[in-house]
Amino acid sequence: MFKVGVVGGTGYTGVELLRLLALHPGVAPSVITSRGEAGTAVSDMFPNLRGHIDLRFTEPDVGRLAECELVFFATPNGTAMKMVPELLRSGTRVVDLAADFRLKDPALWERWYGMPHECPDLLPEAVYGLPEMNRAAVAKARLVANPGCYPTAVTLGFLPLLEAGLIDADSLIADAKSGVSGAGRKASVNALMGECGESFKAYAVPGHRHQPEIRQVLGSILAEPPALTFVPHLVPMIRGINATLYGRLTAEPGDLQALFEARYRGEYFVDVMPAGSHPETRSVRGVNQCRLAVHRPQGGETVVVLSVIDNLVKGAAGQAVQNMNLMLGLEERLGLEAIGLLP
Amino acid sequence: MFKVGVVGGTGYTGVELLRLLALHPGVAPSVITSRGEAGTAVSDMFPNLRGHIDLRFTEPDVGRLAECELVFFATPNGTAMKMVPELLRSGTRVVDLAADFRLKDPALWERWYGMPHECPDLLPEAVYGLPEMNRAAVAKARLVANPGCYPTAVTLGFLPLLEAGLIDADSLIADAKSGVSGAGRKASVNALMGECGESFKAYAVPGHRHQPEIRQVLGSILAEPPALTFVPHLVPMIRGINATLYGRLTAEPGDLQALFEARYRGEYFVDVMPAGSHPETRSVRGVNQCRLAVHRPQGGETVVVLSVIDNLVKGAAGQAVQNMNLMLGLEERLGLEAIGLLP
Amino acid sequence: MFKVGVVGGTGYTGVELLRLLALHPGVAPSVITSRGEAGTAVSDMFPNLRGHIDLRFTEPDVGRLAECELVFFATPNGTAMKMVPELLRSGTRVVDLAADFRLKDPALWERWYGMPHECPDLLPEAVYGLPEMNRAAVAKARLVANPGCYPTAVTLGFLPLLEAGLIDADSLIADAKSGVSGAGRKASVNALMGECGESFKAYAVPGHRHQPEIRQVLGSILAEPPALTFVPHLVPMIRGINATLYGRLTAEPGDLQALFEARYRGEYFVDVMPAGSHPETRSVRGVNQCRLAVHRPQGGETVVVLSVIDNLVKGAAGQAVQNMNLMLGLEERLGLEAIGLLP
Amino acid sequence: MFKVGVVGGTGYTGVELLRLLALHPGVAPSVITSRGEAGTAVSDMFPNLRGHIDLRFTEPDVGRLAECELVFFATPNGTAMKMVPELLRSGTRVVDLAADFRLKDPALWERWYGMPHECPDLLPEAVYGLPEMNRAAVAKARLVANPGCYPTAVTLGFLPLLEAGLIDADSLIADAKSGVSGAGRKASVNALMGECGESFKAYAVPGHRHQPEIRQVLGSILAEPPALTFVPHLVPMIRGINATLYGRLTAEPGDLQALFEARYRGEYFVDVMPAGSHPETRSVRGVNQCRLAVHRPQGGETVVVLSVIDNLVKGAAGQAVQNMNLMLGLEERLGLEAIGLLP
Repeated sequence: MFKVGVVGGTGYTGVELLRLLALHPGVAPSVITSRGEAGTAVSDMFPNLRGHIDLRFTEPDVGRLAECELVFFATPNGTAMKMVPELLRSGTRVVDLAADFRLKDPALWERWYGMPHECPDLLPEAVYGLPEMNRAAVAKARLVANPGCYPTAVTLGFLPLLEAGLIDADSLIADAKSGVSGAGRKASVNALMGECGESFKAYAVPGHRHQPEIRQVLGSILAEPPALTFVPHLVPMIRGINATLYGRLTAEPGDLQALFEARYRGEYFVDVMPAGSHPETRSVRGVNQCRLAVHRPQGGETVVVLSVIDNLVKGAAGQAVQNMNLMLGLEERLGLEAIGLLP
Repeated sequence: MFKVGVVGGTGYTGVELLRLLALHPGVAPSVITSRGEAGTAVSDMFPNLRGHIDLRFTEPDVGRLAECELVFFATPNGTAMKMVPELLRSGTRVVDLAADFRLKDPALWERWYGMPHECPDLLPEAVYGLPEMNRAAVAKARLVANPGCYPTAVTLGFLPLLEAGLIDADSLIADAKSGVSGAGRKASVNALMGECGESFKAYAVPGHRHQPEIRQVLGSILAEPPALTFVPHLVPMIRGINATLYGRLTAEPGDLQALFEARYRGEYFVDVMPAGSHPETRSVRGVNQCRLAVHRPQGGETVVVLSVIDNLVKGAAGQAVQNMNLMLGLEERLGLEAIGLLP
Repeated sequence: MFKVGVVGGTGYTGVELLRLLALHPGVAPSVITSRGEAGTAVSDMFPNLRGHIDLRFTEPDVGRLAECELVFFATPNGTAMKMVPELLRSGTRVVDLAADFRLKDPALWERWYGMPHECPDLLPEAVYGLPEMNRAAVAKARLVANPGCYPTAVTLGFLPLLEAGLIDADSLIADAKSGVSGAGRKASVNALMGECGESFKAYAVPGHRHQPEIRQVLGSILAEPPALTFVPHLVPMIRGINATLYGRLTAEPGDLQALFEARYRGEYFVDVMPAGSHPETRSVRGVNQCRLAVHRPQGGETVVVLSVIDNLVKGAAGQAVQNMNLMLGLEERLGLEAIGLLP
Repeated sequence: MFKVGVVGGTGYTGVELLRLLALHPGVAPSVITSRGEAGTAVSDMFPNLRGHIDLRFTEPDVGRLAECELVFFATPNGTAMKMVPELLRSGTRVVDLAADFRLKDPALWERWYGMPHECPDLLPEAVYGLPEMNRAAVAKARLVANPGCYPTAVTLGFLPLLEAGLIDADSLIADAKSGVSGAGRKASVNALMGECGESFKAYAVPGHRHQPEIRQVLGSILAEPPALTFVPHLVPMIRGINATLYGRLTAEPGDLQALFEARYRGEYFVDVMPAGSHPETRSVRGVNQCRLAVHRPQGGETVVVLSVIDNLVKGAAGQAVQNMNLMLGLEERLGLEAIGLLP
């Protein structure tokens, strides 16, 4: 059993990580930190964990964290970069669920996150933790930048088309919709049920932090980052992301269904659904799965890809555990074989 | 007070129509038909109408309906076309909330609705009831085809751009999202709360009946119907449509905000929000309003228009009353000046 | 047109009050205050009010408020009591939607609200604004304490039974359920959609502030305040209260349905539904209505009353306008004749 | 690996059973029947099962079912009683998730379920499958009647108080609230999201089938069935039951918290929460758990018990698997150790 730690266990990605780790047969969560809740029993804050997690939140302390084989950061953006250098020096490996190590360009980070990066020297080394693209690199990484929720759904959907060079990289449109847990578990007016229940809206149309992240990841396939129009929306539900992706064909594409199936053959966590399908977010509720369907409506020039994930699992905590499994040499799917909760 | 009738008053557009008509100062609902519920008091089926509507459902009877100045059809597709010819002959005017008279081409109707049209001779005469495009024609019409919910939201959003010739008519994408009341009030598994609550999905990606309707309407502005990719989605809420519209600029557009404001100046039921806005469906809950915002993310080549309506009001019953007001020579906004129910 | 003011217009009761006042034919809202949002256009904060309210929030200022005939307080508990004495002295009448003037006993206030009362001398004068009990007194009042949402639903349900002396006053149980808008529009973790969506729970079982209020009101019918077990619950919806009330019969009750109908005959805002009914909260969504049904399951000794209201309307802003109408000598139902938004 | 079968796998209890059985390490689901869907792959109907269940629905056939060690019936009421006698004769054991074998009195069955019982001779033998009451009998049973969802939540909450003789058996009130999945997965108007979303109501106040079931179970503790007022309500959410239970103390009760903890010590699936708690349904979402809290508001004469379960798990499929484990001599918690999905 590997000892693992979680820094910042009081948000939604934190509790989801604890849920997955508590039942994981290969690791033992041994430190959970929270500056604000130090001393509180984890299961007092999250009653679903009663009987499964006996730990109390503690003050973050690099010394204690360094006793872990691997530490997850489920903290607000800008926190991990303050502690990661010391942890890495002590030999502990890190999966950061926040955005600190996702963008390779520190100037881009500063522009979108509003603060200078505190350890830009680590950015080249950090591996973008999308195993379906970077499996081998993740396995060897000391530091993994766990992808954002939208970037995971969008990238897995565009990947086969871009790798095959079938769509115009300057016509990409990602119309993405997320449940409200994506906004985190912090006091705010905007995420009140009275504000976002029974309503639907787009937000951040002028610019969203996940847009440069997606461009960077897709750019690693192409010669350069594509022109991407990315519009996120807020759905009155708790979990789930649906990304509807549009690309303009540049060539006769052949059998798109076969292309997608071939790309993801053997990928346990990506399910290409039968031709004509419409994946529902509930089919992946609580599980580390991306379900995809590819359409070419009425044989036209536009390809439509539907991509669904649970933003807290394949979009955050589940993918982090998938990365951990690879890093620790465990079976990649260990602890991640649950079935989506439907209905 | 004009006498008006409603054929098929037991669905969601029916009850919404009754809600609006009950308080309308210029008309008196005097016949409400339902084959299945004949004899039932309307307010027994819809308790919100207790104290406001004293009628009982009756068997549909053209004779009694013909005593009305105007009759609404809130029936399933294919019903109105059986009764409308006789009603028109008797001098009663008609607003059909179903699709029977929306498509001008009877072959297109048959292909999308799966039945031959029974009075194709009336199709040329029927006026497409989007007052913001066809106000004068509506006022004189004997027969108005009330637009579909998606077509209303999509058309009002694209209109200023297409009229100004600013976007490529072969790049149009409409990513639309609707609450579940759009599926109607009939027994079905798919619209159970257990099936569509807490989940999100696209549907009908290969083809949806509103796609040819939108192409026809937009085509009336252009030389020919545009190539439109239309993807509808189901949102876990009851009321509301949000359409996110994408068009590729073909020329330097100038001030898009000013363009939209100019197009809809004086339109009481279309509200162009301030630059940078993100309209929410709840802001139009229960009211005959379309709220629009226009964006050009990061100054790129793609224009994004956000358009929200209440699918049951501006997308159905409210627009029908707006058309009725025009047809009867009443003030266009009569009975339609409520304020959206927020929260 | 009477000039009216609203102190604290940024919460849910505030915006609801503005929605009702904006369309009210007898009054003109002329001052809306908010310390935090002074200078902001009301319709920038609440887009549903665009085109209906042109005011901006201003700093609360007794001088300006005193120019109004009547002022509403839609403020947190403890605010009104600081300003009301001066306003009354200037001749302006007041409806307080908060709790400051509901409890007659200042010691009880201090115990439940955690602060000393600042003008206990006004408590005897304040009229509890439940018109169905206190209509005449409301009409003459300078100061009306608008009832709490739960007390309104519970009191109207128990009233006929207690006035008739049919149930044991020491066996009263009120199992009440409220939508989340009851928690107000302020940043908090507990009211996040991620916390209260798709879940149900009881809260405040050891004691809730509305319990002494209900006891006081019911006590005004009885010789003394009854023993009441009051358990509130949080429902994953935005608007609506359902109170399920249990009382033990002390005598053969005769025709309970007739009793209820007789008690509320002529009461426009209380609707006794037909025998055997189960009122739904949605039937009163957005309207100033209480719907009641009375049951005696299997002829046993327990009477069950079902009472539904919209917590923001008959439970707050609508009742406040009803009180205002009485106080200003207007028709009681003026501006309150909308129809519930269903679905 | 024991072979098990499921008759009627297309409803919500069916798919939930399949979810639990698919990952259960001790059994192999080998037959899943559905008259209407014979031939369909299970995972085509329930995409969450893709990759986990390879079976197709087959016509119900006693011969094939008899090859199973144990068969579950997840059928509508009245179906199991037609097939169970033959299955038992062939040596297959049965857990019926419907109501066919819950009531001991065939006349009571006929009255509440509207059809004569077809094998009343089996009723005495059938064991009521609430392991926390009847563990030993379940283990030896050929035929287990899996309890209703409401009866599970209500019985576990009242049990300690009634066993200890602390409350008046003629004052019992159970105010219960259920998510909509309790209504099943069949086409109906009442369970449409448009009908039950964003609304709350009581139903079946004059009488609900679970009332005689609860009385029978509680009556097995007492000298005779108690007088129980049972009022169910519909909550706009998918999963979860909350029962708020009221009993009148007949004696000074001592330490109620200790009483509950003692009663359920060692019960893995019943969690007595700390004094003062308010269990949320989401804390048991997807898991075979009942969470309880006991209150005595303000030291009065009424005890309030809060009891939450997931109606599809501890209220149906999970309890069925728990019973199966006991019957097959497996560890009782095998396959049932998941953690509730929160948020």
